[in-house]
Amino acid sequence: MTKKIDVGIVMGSKSDLPVMQKVADVLDTLDIGYEMRILSAHRTPLQAKTWAETAKDRGIQVLICGAGMAAHLAGAVAAHSLLPVIGVPLGATLGGVDSLLSTVQMPPGVPVATVGIGSGGAKNAAWLAARIISVHDSSVEARMKAAIEDKRNQVLAQDAELQK
Amino acid sequence: MTKKIDVGIVMGSKSDLPVMQKVADVLDTLDIGYEMRILSAHRTPLQAKTWAETAKDRGIQVLICGAGMAAHLAGAVAAHSLLPVIGVPLGATLGGVDSLLSTVQMPPGVPVATVGIGSGGAKNAAWLAARIISVHDSSVEARMKAAIEDKRNQVLAQDAELQK
Amino acid sequence: MTKKIDVGIVMGSKSDLPVMQKVADVLDTLDIGYEMRILSAHRTPLQAKTWAETAKDRGIQVLICGAGMAAHLAGAVAAHSLLPVIGVPLGATLGGVDSLLSTVQMPPGVPVATVGIGSGGAKNAAWLAARIISVHDSSVEARMKAAIEDKRNQVLAQDAELQK
Amino acid sequence: MTKKIDVGIVMGSKSDLPVMQKVADVLDTLDIGYEMRILSAHRTPLQAKTWAETAKDRGIQVLICGAGMAAHLAGAVAAHSLLPVIGVPLGATLGGVDSLLSTVQMPPGVPVATVGIGSGGAKNAAWLAARIISVHDSSVEARMKAAIEDKRNQVLAQDAELQK
Amino acid sequence: MTKKIDVGIVMGSKSDLPVMQKVADVLDTLDIGYEMRILSAHRTPLQAKTWAETAKDRGIQVLICGAGMAAHLAGAVAAHSLLPVIGVPLGATLGGVDSLLSTVQMPPGVPVATVGIGSGGAKNAAWLAARIISVHDSSVEARMKAAIEDKRNQVLAQDAELQK
Amino acid sequence: MTKKIDVGIVMGSKSDLPVMQKVADVLDTLDIGYEMRILSAHRTPLQAKTWAETAKDRGIQVLICGAGMAAHLAGAVAAHSLLPVIGVPLGATLGGVDSLLSTVQMPPGVPVATVGIGSGGAKNAAWLAARIISVHDSSVEARMKAAIEDKRNQVLAQDAELQK
Amino acid sequence: MTKKIDVGIVMGSKSDLPVMQKVADVLDTLDIGYEMRILSAHRTPLQAKTWAETAKDRGIQVLICGAGMAAHLAGAVAAHSLLPVIGVPLGATLGGVDSLLSTVQMPPGVPVATVGIGSGGAKNAAWLAARIISVHDSSVEARMKAAIEDKRNQVLAQDAELQK
Amino acid sequence: MTKKIDVGIVMGSKSDLPVMQKVADVLDTLDIGYEMRILSAHRTPLQAKTWAETAKDRGIQVLICGAGMAAHLAGAVAAHSLLPVIGVPLGATLGGVDSLLSTVQMPPGVPVATVGIGSGGAKNAAWLAARIISVHDSSVEARMKAAIEDKRNQVLAQDAELQK
Repeated sequence: MTKKIDVGIVMGSKSDLPVMQKVADVLDTLDIGYEMRILSAHRTPLQAKTWAETAKDRGIQVLICGAGMAAHLAGAVAAHSLLPVIGVPLGATLGGVDSLLSTVQMPPGVPVATVGIGSGGAKNAAWLAARIISVHDSSVEARMKAAIEDKRNQVLAQDAELQK
Repeated sequence: MTKKIDVGIVMGSKSDLPVMQKVADVLDTLDIGYEMRILSAHRTPLQAKTWAETAKDRGIQVLICGAGMAAHLAGAVAAHSLLPVIGVPLGATLGGVDSLLSTVQMPPGVPVATVGIGSGGAKNAAWLAARIISVHDSSVEARMKAAIEDKRNQVLAQDAELQK
Repeated sequence: MTKKIDVGIVMGSKSDLPVMQKVADVLDTLDIGYEMRILSAHRTPLQAKTWAETAKDRGIQVLICGAGMAAHLAGAVAAHSLLPVIGVPLGATLGGVDSLLSTVQMPPGVPVATVGIGSGGAKNAAWLAARIISVHDSSVEARMKAAIEDKRNQVLAQDAELQK
Repeated sequence: MTKKIDVGIVMGSKSDLPVMQKVADVLDTLDIGYEMRILSAHRTPLQAKTWAETAKDRGIQVLICGAGMAAHLAGAVAAHSLLPVIGVPLGATLGGVDSLLSTVQMPPGVPVATVGIGSGGAKNAAWLAARIISVHDSSVEARMKAAIEDKRNQVLAQDAELQK
Repeated sequence: MTKKIDVGIVMGSKSDLPVMQKVADVLDTLDIGYEMRILSAHRTPLQAKTWAETAKDRGIQVLICGAGMAAHLAGAVAAHSLLPVIGVPLGATLGGVDSLLSTVQMPPGVPVATVGIGSGGAKNAAWLAARIISVHDSSVEARMKAAIEDKRNQVLAQDAELQK
Repeated sequence: MTKKIDVGIVMGSKSDLPVMQKVADVLDTLDIGYEMRILSAHRTPLQAKTWAETAKDRGIQVLICGAGMAAHLAGAVAAHSLLPVIGVPLGATLGGVDSLLSTVQMPPGVPVATVGIGSGGAKNAAWLAARIISVHDSSVEARMKAAIEDKRNQVLAQDAELQK
Repeated sequence: MTKKIDVGIVMGSKSDLPVMQKVADVLDTLDIGYEMRILSAHRTPLQAKTWAETAKDRGIQVLICGAGMAAHLAGAVAAHSLLPVIGVPLGATLGGVDSLLSTVQMPPGVPVATVGIGSGGAKNAAWLAARIISVHDSSVEARMKAAIEDKRNQVLAQDAELQK
Repeated sequence: MTKKIDVGIVMGSKSDLPVMQKVADVLDTLDIGYEMRILSAHRTPLQAKTWAETAKDRGIQVLICGAGMAAHLAGAVAAHSLLPVIGVPLGATLGGVDSLLSTVQMPPGVPVATVGIGSGGAKNAAWLAARIISVHDSSVEARMKAAIEDKRNQVLAQDAELQK
């Protein structure tokens, strides 16, 4: 049986895949279904628009957009969908300050839920999506709780090992 | 009949109220119920912790946290609740760069959905909360759509007036 | 006789008008025809797209876009037109660093000719448009030369006055 | 038959060549003729001045200037020619923030059409030149459209491959 | 005989150990006793709280906290102890500007004594702790004086060698 | 009976007094004795050196230094005393980023305990001094506890008032 | 008898005069002769070049250049004279970071002696010029020593007053 | 015959030597005598003070100081000598922004002639020293002119080679 697709992941270029794959990795851990697309706000604006506009009807609950430099993708997606949109600023020349500001400083009414720059942000995009989904999905909440508990135990184990 | 509380708003100090009131204003527009609290991550950590831990059981779906400078409040709330947590960086000495970075650059597993700095960000925190709630609440979605349509018409009216 | 429209000016909100009016002022000085619109990349994306797509056929030679914060308007216009697109970063919370980076750091193939932040940049957007038009329009070139000569004489007159 | 020279490319030092070569590469793709020079605003100011002053008479339509650090070359060229001048900020010690600000923040009347930092900016300088030339040259416009279409198809192909 | 523990060192993750080990190295040089823990403000907040709350009763005089990105650990510790708390901002994506601002810009009443970014800061955290302890401990003061004298002689020796 | 002087406060110019007075205000609240001096690292280096060198013998436990721009005062004081030195970066042209970096990025062995920029930092310098003194002074600890408790109650009262 | 002109001061626009007047004020204090000009690197490049090229022959020993934004004036002057050139970055939109970087980050062989941003920098440009002149002029050295002594006494008097 | 020492070069640590050696290399090219010292503003303040105070009497005309992080060395030297002091900001963690601001933003009366960050700045410190010395030394001026002419010819040769 195919898993239900709850999260839509999109990035502007194949070169963003190594970082955005971490979104998928965390969602896999939490057993949350997703689709992953390469669509550009500037090169394939119509496809990006269509993807955003149809996402809710296809049952998707959260959209995650990764882009670098003058990162417009998350904003463009948020202009064409009323789903919660998460933006992952990808770092490059300026360490990601350009993509962070291009993603987070959105005008009122078109919010982008921005997470940290690069790989850490990509992971947190997945964790944030899980929190949003788990508001109405106790099985996701349970898996998330377990995964967070694992992380907690990992810190405690590191601490215990250090004491030796 | 008392309105159901769907959003918890918290700020670290009464001095944050003028900006954070804009969160409430937008939620009022969308007829979304909320509670508003003053709790500090550093001065009243236990109260902040309790508030975060009990939010979900009290039926709250989204938490919105406003803080300035080394803005730790959203992160502290996210450490004690698995609800989606939205962070509003409040600007001061450094234009809000300090609070933006303190809010958005969270470690993996503890995401804060960061919006823009100051008043614009406060409004977008409410719009983002509405998007999250509307995934499972078509009445909020309908009101949000109408409000967005109003904003669109406002731009079109400004444009029409400019052409005269 | 109506003047031919050579430049299309667009801004995201009526609040941008005081700065963007300076684009029009300089174009008036150079007797270059223009149209001025309020269109938002995020609130009225379809209207912005249509405006950009039809500009060339309406005889427009250069597009000038002013936007603040996560300034996506110039990039969105450049995605829907092959005309030269000039971006004016408008300053606000962060002094305009956010809009500068959001405007200038475009991906290859979708260039935005970025000028300085705020009023100075708005004036230079007009001067840059005049340079582009004057490549094939010697009357604009002549008026531009005269205006630049005026500016030169103004500096010399200031200098002469200082020597007294 | 020698190709007509439409674009003048200049850089301040041979060490800028690896990045500025990308300007030439994109212009080659679009079959636009160019000349490439090494001239320094500070070390060979007379040669730079002469080059800028004579460019229009030699039939050149656009000037592209690459420089790093306190990047004055584009501004110096814009002071000696009324052609559209494109500035490419080259990155070094400070990630290119110094050259970006030195290039874009020009005083009114002496605009520099600034593109992004480094290699991406160099490519976009060529794309911007092509847009300027294509206002009056439908063959360049046609080749540019085809090249952009290629880029679009490349994104779509990357997306299709990802779906497998 | 076990050495008395005067300094508590804590970091948020095992990955911070290579830098934070330098705190321990300097304390070893000065023969100051310490304990080193891995505790996270966000993943193990209760353990961090307990550690901070009990530190003074266990005889500890100074707490040193290392954290990166949105570095909340030092602030969280300072909220649960009245001991002097030293924060070491650890650098990553943005060169440590994010952790520096997250550590130093604390609200009045909850101070964090912030030192420089990364390894240099880690060493200075130890030197600062030694200064605090030496206010009432002349043996530490004597060892610190000798170590500083060694550093002085090292500079003088480098200078002497350069003159040859 | 004259109160014992436990804290030495120094600033580089009379113009720093309005901000640095806040250090004294907090120390007054905690009934901690202090002396306040105007001494410049660059204009009166000998006096600054003498003040720093003799501080410990005069019974002072902590030194607090406020300076703006290229803020060298705290570092200069730390070079001439082994007491804990607290630096308050005072903001001006660049919002205090210059003084923050000039204060905090000290070389290993010469630590400056840096607090936040401007008035908030000045208050925290006093709170940090109180923490250092209270390690061996239970009466200061008791007064600090009471003052912190007051601040806590103030937040709770603000919160209670907001609920009305 | 006319005083000998030892310093040439230049600024790009009359609007820079209020800040650059402070250069003249300090030179007046030190009884150093100067000329003050308004010349623009971009609007009157030939006049700026001539002024720079002829300065040494007219007996001038130091050139001081004030400019804002993409501040090219000092660099342009340094390209046309081998005298020591001092650059004063004037602040505006971005607090002067743009003019600071445009002034200081010069390529090897064309140095600009950069001082601080705005009024403080303007004063220091005069003090730096006095240091350069005084290498071979003991009367300037004597007046400078006296003026510095005055500043020292002013700090000591402020300190004495504070102790009352 | 020993060459006359005209320039004093100082750095805070042996680790600064690879960059500061470039000062010496340029001075060697221009046949200007120099001494090079390792002295720290914070670790050997007395030696640094003595060196600065005695420099003029030993016939030195210019002092060049290289330092990184919170770079106080040039300022400390300028506080103890009335010779022109050139500061070279050395880059590290933050790309040298910290040392640039710590060097250039000096208070009025204590100017530091700041050059660019790192190796380029080190070279320009030597070129600036040569300009200062050449005001009264025509042989240095002649050698400087020749060296600048060489650089000019190098650019022209690079340009000529590129045209092949």
